[in-house]
Amino acid sequence: MKPFMDENFLLNCNTSIELYNKFAKDMPIFDYHCHLDAKEIAEDKKYNNITEVWLYGDHYKWRLMRAKGVPEKFITGDGTDKEKFMKWAETIPYCIGNPIYHWTHMELKKYFDINEILSPKTAEHIWTVCNEKLKKDLTVKNIIKKSNVDAIFTTNEPTDNLEYHKKIKKDGDFINVLPTFRPDKFINIEKNDFRDWVKKLEAVSEIKILNFDDLINALRSRIKYFNSIGTKISDHALDPIVYRKGTKEEVDIIFKKSLENKPLENDEIEKYKTKVLILMAKEYYKYNWAMQIHIGVNRNNNSKMMKTLGPDTGYDSIGDYQFSESLIKFLDSLEKKNKLPKTIMYCLNPRDNEVIATIAGCFQGNEISGRIQYGPAWWFNDHIDGMKKQITTLANYGVLSEFLGMLTDSRSFLSYTRHEYFRRLLCEILGQWIEFGELPNDIDAIGNIIKDICYNNAKKYFSE
Amino acid sequence: MKPFMDENFLLNCNTSIELYNKFAKDMPIFDYHCHLDAKEIAEDKKYNNITEVWLYGDHYKWRLMRAKGVPEKFITGDGTDKEKFMKWAETIPYCIGNPIYHWTHMELKKYFDINEILSPKTAEHIWTVCNEKLKKDLTVKNIIKKSNVDAIFTTNEPTDNLEYHKKIKKDGDFINVLPTFRPDKFINIEKNDFRDWVKKLEAVSEIKILNFDDLINALRSRIKYFNSIGTKISDHALDPIVYRKGTKEEVDIIFKKSLENKPLENDEIEKYKTKVLILMAKEYYKYNWAMQIHIGVNRNNNSKMMKTLGPDTGYDSIGDYQFSESLIKFLDSLEKKNKLPKTIMYCLNPRDNEVIATIAGCFQGNEISGRIQYGPAWWFNDHIDGMKKQITTLANYGVLSEFLGMLTDSRSFLSYTRHEYFRRLLCEILGQWIEFGELPNDIDAIGNIIKDICYNNAKKYFSE
Amino acid sequence: MKPFMDENFLLNCNTSIELYNKFAKDMPIFDYHCHLDAKEIAEDKKYNNITEVWLYGDHYKWRLMRAKGVPEKFITGDGTDKEKFMKWAETIPYCIGNPIYHWTHMELKKYFDINEILSPKTAEHIWTVCNEKLKKDLTVKNIIKKSNVDAIFTTNEPTDNLEYHKKIKKDGDFINVLPTFRPDKFINIEKNDFRDWVKKLEAVSEIKILNFDDLINALRSRIKYFNSIGTKISDHALDPIVYRKGTKEEVDIIFKKSLENKPLENDEIEKYKTKVLILMAKEYYKYNWAMQIHIGVNRNNNSKMMKTLGPDTGYDSIGDYQFSESLIKFLDSLEKKNKLPKTIMYCLNPRDNEVIATIAGCFQGNEISGRIQYGPAWWFNDHIDGMKKQITTLANYGVLSEFLGMLTDSRSFLSYTRHEYFRRLLCEILGQWIEFGELPNDIDAIGNIIKDICYNNAKKYFSE
Repeated sequence: MKPFMDENFLLNCNTSIELYNKFAKDMPIFDYHCHLDAKEIAEDKKYNNITEVWLYGDHYKWRLMRAKGVPEKFITGDGTDKEKFMKWAETIPYCIGNPIYHWTHMELKKYFDINEILSPKTAEHIWTVCNEKLKKDLTVKNIIKKSNVDAIFTTNEPTDNLEYHKKIKKDGDFINVLPTFRPDKFINIEKNDFRDWVKKLEAVSEIKILNFDDLINALRSRIKYFNSIGTKISDHALDPIVYRKGTKEEVDIIFKKSLENKPLENDEIEKYKTKVLILMAKEYYKYNWAMQIHIGVNRNNNSKMMKTLGPDTGYDSIGDYQFSESLIKFLDSLEKKNKLPKTIMYCLNPRDNEVIATIAGCFQGNEISGRIQYGPAWWFNDHIDGMKKQITTLANYGVLSEFLGMLTDSRSFLSYTRHEYFRRLLCEILGQWIEFGELPNDIDAIGNIIKDICYNNAKKYFSE
Repeated sequence: MKPFMDENFLLNCNTSIELYNKFAKDMPIFDYHCHLDAKEIAEDKKYNNITEVWLYGDHYKWRLMRAKGVPEKFITGDGTDKEKFMKWAETIPYCIGNPIYHWTHMELKKYFDINEILSPKTAEHIWTVCNEKLKKDLTVKNIIKKSNVDAIFTTNEPTDNLEYHKKIKKDGDFINVLPTFRPDKFINIEKNDFRDWVKKLEAVSEIKILNFDDLINALRSRIKYFNSIGTKISDHALDPIVYRKGTKEEVDIIFKKSLENKPLENDEIEKYKTKVLILMAKEYYKYNWAMQIHIGVNRNNNSKMMKTLGPDTGYDSIGDYQFSESLIKFLDSLEKKNKLPKTIMYCLNPRDNEVIATIAGCFQGNEISGRIQYGPAWWFNDHIDGMKKQITTLANYGVLSEFLGMLTDSRSFLSYTRHEYFRRLLCEILGQWIEFGELPNDIDAIGNIIKDICYNNAKKYFSE
Repeated sequence: MKPFMDENFLLNCNTSIELYNKFAKDMPIFDYHCHLDAKEIAEDKKYNNITEVWLYGDHYKWRLMRAKGVPEKFITGDGTDKEKFMKWAETIPYCIGNPIYHWTHMELKKYFDINEILSPKTAEHIWTVCNEKLKKDLTVKNIIKKSNVDAIFTTNEPTDNLEYHKKIKKDGDFINVLPTFRPDKFINIEKNDFRDWVKKLEAVSEIKILNFDDLINALRSRIKYFNSIGTKISDHALDPIVYRKGTKEEVDIIFKKSLENKPLENDEIEKYKTKVLILMAKEYYKYNWAMQIHIGVNRNNNSKMMKTLGPDTGYDSIGDYQFSESLIKFLDSLEKKNKLPKTIMYCLNPRDNEVIATIAGCFQGNEISGRIQYGPAWWFNDHIDGMKKQITTLANYGVLSEFLGMLTDSRSFLSYTRHEYFRRLLCEILGQWIEFGELPNDIDAIGNIIKDICYNNAKKYFSE
């Protein structure tokens, strides 16, 4: 019987243990996709208590608390921070088998030296110890340093002035914190706030936006600006991805209708989105950015809670849409003009792993190793089974060695333990393959592949 | 090498064995969904031979026999009971890896003390022993008692007068046998027998049904009647689930067209179904019933056999339809009016496990623990892999501890062994997690969760 | 620690080892679906070097090389054979976890007695040894003999004159090499080359094709001809499968429009395809052929490379289309007229395994054992996980013992090792079931089932 989450957690044979300790454990982290706030880094934010870090923004935990019947008051409501923590401590013992169960205890161990299991019995003590450490010196920058992070790619609106990214760079004593260009607001023409975002873009770009060309020029100016700050990557949440060709004239008319607040037909929306997406992708190619595509989500399923709490509060689910035709046509339309940027694709529905992996394989080449990436297990799928499935799917249908590896995708600075989780699983998979004679027992060669997946591949992918 | 199906069947480490024996084995069964016949319970039916129990209604077995080339005469035809049994005995040795292989031998062991493996060689002896026991004292009530069953929820038409449920209650010496309200016949307006069912409903409700309001009133009167008999739950087979809003006036016209036997457009059918479903669900909420939703089935694929044998004879398959949008809109339309009942969702396609599990997570809350349930592996998926996948999916995406656990969904009184199958797998999963250090070695805490999943959760869910 | 790919490769318990060695290893191969060239067999082709066998046509390998950034020059371009081999040797060490990694080393071992691991270090030596053996006596016929192959079903156009199949038969000293009838070209009416193929059919059938009846008669004459050469099987790649009923008159008009090069509507294309498919299937039934249905592919995703290299060059992906409704209607339309031939169904998307397996179960019967087959893991899915999933899915949802087993689906004569791969996995699965007490320890009975799946079932299926 292995002790609970000891140093060999998830490592179940000697080879896995050796691989992890010799090659994976000490590699730095290249976090190429997250939702951390550059302001909090720049200002080296200090927390008053563990609830602020753990429960203020983590809708993963909120969902579990709701499923356990915890009143919303103690989740997002006006309960005190202590009450909320206590409710979480009541919930966690029932979350067996859920990744949050493991992450919670990994975070307690790594950042607070706490080896106790969180429960109502231990909650008081854990509350005290965590808060002491947080108030003493566990600031945002110290958490990042303790996590051996080498680069952080935040996620930003095109209208963001990026002042905090600039400040961090100017201050000069910290790692790379670079913005990601995420223009969803300018693609989702059907949303109510679309025109407001166009206004904001006008203001920040100082380009009067009267037609589609103006819009694209304004977005291009922002891409140029982002690039000047060091951006290497863009991001798109496509719910769902569409592909419908329209002429520039058509799209110009559609865009103007939208500015005049006239209703759009579905095919108009799709033509508009397709055109913007393609034009943006060509820009990314020009600057040698990578393009991230996130698909497969049903967002804001619960309209009652959407009204109260807004988006990203724990009411999204996994979508079951056909997407391969649109995705292929989109990639192909760029590839045939030799304008396809490096691309990372994520689908929230794990049933579609094989589809994504094989589509990636159709657009490889151009003498760039790992050009098209089937991204790591995303969001809901960041659990043992989900990560193992993603890693083995990639191996089965492509070249695992080229994988960019893990990212946090997180709003919390304590989430770097997810990289440890991932690395342990990766070493366990490869270790088992060696032990069972499915891979040669060439520890150094396999070790180098592990180092590449943990860090070197991402470093290289975003340097070239 | 473990002996075939011994007392540690499916339990492959000491912790699993301990968990099963200490916490799971002796818990009563709360069978909240099955297709048993209350009449056979009330009358304490006695069987003449094992073919009556095993092969008269079990289309799971019929499919296997057909795949092995057994002539239909010995499946559903005029072969003798003995001949049919012998054909089944010829078939079973080839069904390795199929859950029926295990269930067959679990049933022989549990109800007949037979440890032999069924094959042509042993068939004669097994035939004799089984039939002796059946004729001696293995009546329906005795089978149920031997199975440690605490409650049975049968599945019933709204027009059912429930006389046998009342008789069982009145007789007073038996467990709760409660009806489930399943109004499919009144939702499937496109079916040929729809008007016949409306006639039956008129008769039993004593409400003249001339328009949509009448129909709903008649159904409501039946819900009230079912509730008076103790019903706690409804059931819907939605093939597929649809969601299309229509006004009450529109739906009234559609319903009247149907009564006049006029053809309906597809969007009319969908509007009708949506409206009935929503109105029924609001009733369930009023009575604090749970609502079951079964989706993902292609029914009656083989029209030749449908003509000969009718539905539920082994000609259904797993569907590959998109459903998330309709399902979400349906749940949301209820939730935003605060009328969403407790809900249990089942999808026959295991590729959609994650979709169902995450949709459930979007409608939790309201201070009810486990309000929305992602139901156990259903029908075709009741095998080791299917059950393990359902349990781990629930753990990965939600709160496993709140799970209502297993049900039989069966037409046979011997199927209670499926609960044993499920419990062994549940204990094996949790035991392995403990042995591998993924869960704390706190046997009592985990044991309590197991007891909850085996019985307590269901008991509580249907008591509140 | 097991040595890399030793004699117990993939066999991880004693029972698996015993099953493999006693029952699986020495069974002949019945390769009922492949893309080998009868001409190369008839002429007993000799290779100049290993690149010719390994890299001239194997788009599986090309995809991996592209993903590793190898320039197209060294994949399909004008690089020398030696250069191409060296690039493959550079690529393979990074393909860990991919089935090609295993197949490469199985082929080196089986056909060249090479136990080294392919890498830039060993490449020179392996190049020399392989080429010597190839030039010495490793001709196509000798490879086939060494592989213990009993029958080969090649894949052929209806217009093929089958001269090489006839030559092989006439030469008389070799195994059965029989053609498969694959009429895709005459079903895909929307393709540009459709009329050219009709012209070719006219020429070879000596039937003037002016209307739909002529077309069907010409195809029927080819089926008759194929049958006279020994054909037992047809094949259809349906991308996707459609089902839309049209009258013969409608389809005749559609076909004539096509001959006149007039554009067709989508529903016309579907009506045409449905009609041809049904008429062909009825012919197969008449001759007692099996019908193969391959679905779930997105073909030719990369139009730039399609222009340069044509189809089947590594630019296909797994499709995510709904298909069950069309597939069921197609099968049902034949079954209800008692004209459904033996059928083998393959879907490229492994998420649909359960759908295919349960649809198969709806059309079993007619007193033919294993009449409807859920075919082995196909193409991209020919890896350990994919094969295990197919085998266990078949066991969970049907009768594994009736399985026709493995095929190569390959363009390379060295691919017979895939049968060994499959057999090892099959024995491992059954061996583990025995060791864990999920199957009785009746080695001979299970061994016979293994022999059936390895060879006897296919032999019988295509003899009856």
